[in-house]
Amino acid sequence: MLVSELDTPALLLDRAVLKRNLSRMSARMKAHGIKLRPHLKTAKSAAVARLAAPDGAITVSTLAEARYFKQHGIADILYGVGIVPGKLDEAAKLGVTIVLDSLEAARAVASHGAKHKVLIEIDCGQGRAGISATSPLLLEIARVLGPHLSGVMTHAGHSYHCHSIAEVKAIAEQERSIVVSAAERLRGADIACQVVSAGSTPTAVHGERYDGLTEMRPGVYMFNDLDQLALGSCGADDLALSVLASVVGRYPERNQALVDAGALALSKDVSAHEFTPQVGFGAIADADLQGLAINDVNQEHGFINNATPALSLGRKLRVLPNHACITAAAYARYHVIDSELDGGRTVVDVWERVNGW
Amino acid sequence: MLVSELDTPALLLDRAVLKRNLSRMSARMKAHGIKLRPHLKTAKSAAVARLAAPDGAITVSTLAEARYFKQHGIADILYGVGIVPGKLDEAAKLGVTIVLDSLEAARAVASHGAKHKVLIEIDCGQGRAGISATSPLLLEIARVLGPHLSGVMTHAGHSYHCHSIAEVKAIAEQERSIVVSAAERLRGADIACQVVSAGSTPTAVHGERYDGLTEMRPGVYMFNDLDQLALGSCGADDLALSVLASVVGRYPERNQALVDAGALALSKDVSAHEFTPQVGFGAIADADLQGLAINDVNQEHGFINNATPALSLGRKLRVLPNHACITAAAYARYHVIDSELDGGRTVVDVWERVNGW
Repeated sequence: MLVSELDTPALLLDRAVLKRNLSRMSARMKAHGIKLRPHLKTAKSAAVARLAAPDGAITVSTLAEARYFKQHGIADILYGVGIVPGKLDEAAKLGVTIVLDSLEAARAVASHGAKHKVLIEIDCGQGRAGISATSPLLLEIARVLGPHLSGVMTHAGHSYHCHSIAEVKAIAEQERSIVVSAAERLRGADIACQVVSAGSTPTAVHGERYDGLTEMRPGVYMFNDLDQLALGSCGADDLALSVLASVVGRYPERNQALVDAGALALSKDVSAHEFTPQVGFGAIADADLQGLAINDVNQEHGFINNATPALSLGRKLRVLPNHACITAAAYARYHVIDSELDGGRTVVDVWERVNGW
Repeated sequence: MLVSELDTPALLLDRAVLKRNLSRMSARMKAHGIKLRPHLKTAKSAAVARLAAPDGAITVSTLAEARYFKQHGIADILYGVGIVPGKLDEAAKLGVTIVLDSLEAARAVASHGAKHKVLIEIDCGQGRAGISATSPLLLEIARVLGPHLSGVMTHAGHSYHCHSIAEVKAIAEQERSIVVSAAERLRGADIACQVVSAGSTPTAVHGERYDGLTEMRPGVYMFNDLDQLALGSCGADDLALSVLASVVGRYPERNQALVDAGALALSKDVSAHEFTPQVGFGAIADADLQGLAINDVNQEHGFINNATPALSLGRKLRVLPNHACITAAAYARYHVIDSELDGGRTVVDVWERVNGW
């Protein structure tokens, strides 16, 4: 089937770009001698996981992802959101590694009965989840966990707000050094700490040292998006994901056009606005429409200002999302294209996604 | 099953509130003597449609909704997004009424071969889709459509930005009078105009006159949300939808807590911020947590500032969304509760939704 024959809106994934993005990250992690445990929260697809994680070690953001990837033969899964007592039964059944950052959660694990693999979450500066690497809690939690403890993990989410590569590099070193120092504190107290896990796409792309870490967990690098482009994590040729939309209305009297991709098809995420507000709710990728964007959205309508006559009724165009993880979540599947094969004109495959919880 | 036993995040729908909202709107439209053709873009559920549209006339925002509701026995469907030539085959197959606002689209319909039912879209002030009721295009499009023409329609989307009920009432009258004037122009030119369709929730709740209209198409009134509450379309007891979330992290040193409902579970829609920015990405409904909100979101994390000790690890709480239509779209199903039965403590039913395109 030709892309031009697809019903819209549809989610397009360029396999050639995806594979390049995967190879680049895989080679980088290999060069640093540490395991890549890609985060599948962006792709949520077994077909992508097979390409991204040939060794079968992945990270997930929901138990729905864990169930799905386990069904698809992936056994080594880290569930990256803080565990609560009510999710321990399913975590044990799925055999996922879990994360926690409190004595309460550690006590719930210790008294749960099942064998768990647990990472203690360390805050390396984002101020989301995790304890300080210097907190007395680190050793207390580790002692409560006893044989359930596998190691420590952190995530430099604040790397998403850097305004220079130098800043990303500094945060990458902060992420590394802080979680490694937590591991060393445990070992200094004669507590085994096998896993030292870190990672975000910016810090995995730009970090200069990874020594002391055992693994990195970037996710959105697979697809990239306007936010990662603005952050400097990738180049304009590295954006694998786009939304195919049709022009459903033309209003030359106000230089405006409407497409059938709105708040649901694109999401209301405007992450890239911190750096490039001109991309609106998505930038239009078509060569003859450079500079245009989806400037506003209603549920199923996207507004294009500064519309040109090239936006004829029914014209299909491709919209690059601000934030791939959030936009992709509205779709049950990818229509896979391959820009190296034929410029991305045909649908070469259809890959399912797992959404929800 | 008890609500307290549900895995989180989960989408809760209070059937008692839903039924009250439906009865109120249904009685109001009946009193004004016009048909209610509810918009199912919010609910996307056959179970809700059966309650909301006992006469079987509905509006939808996607062809996926049209397919789904047709499979569930609903025959009289208006597809409310401007048609493009490439969607005419499916529209004909489904037998949906379509809307358009250009000569190009009208010509595509006229030459398509199948019999269509078409409404010409009129812009009543939102500046989204539609032609002016006074435009020469109105009669030209109508003549091209010939026997395919059923009538005219409009949507006062700008009613969502009113800062007083008086303003909503004025927009309701604008919506009514403009679309009725378009119908009269057609009739004045000896062109039959059977359907005169209008509607948004605010204008359906507050309009004073509906004469000349044949139907109204509100949608979000079924559930309501923080945006409709702020707009004055409903009261605080009329919010039928909420997201059940669990506390997954507590950070007393900064008075913060994390829940497992983030950007995907709540959406990044902050519609209500135009009026009530303090609701963040969702207001917490629990009686002992009044005043708290989800102040920030990452993909699967929601941040609560000013957290209290009541937010213990694993504590479940209910979050009221800014915009029900967008939040609900992340879920495959509703867990139905009934506040009049038992205060909403048990799951009394599970209703499926149709998402995507």
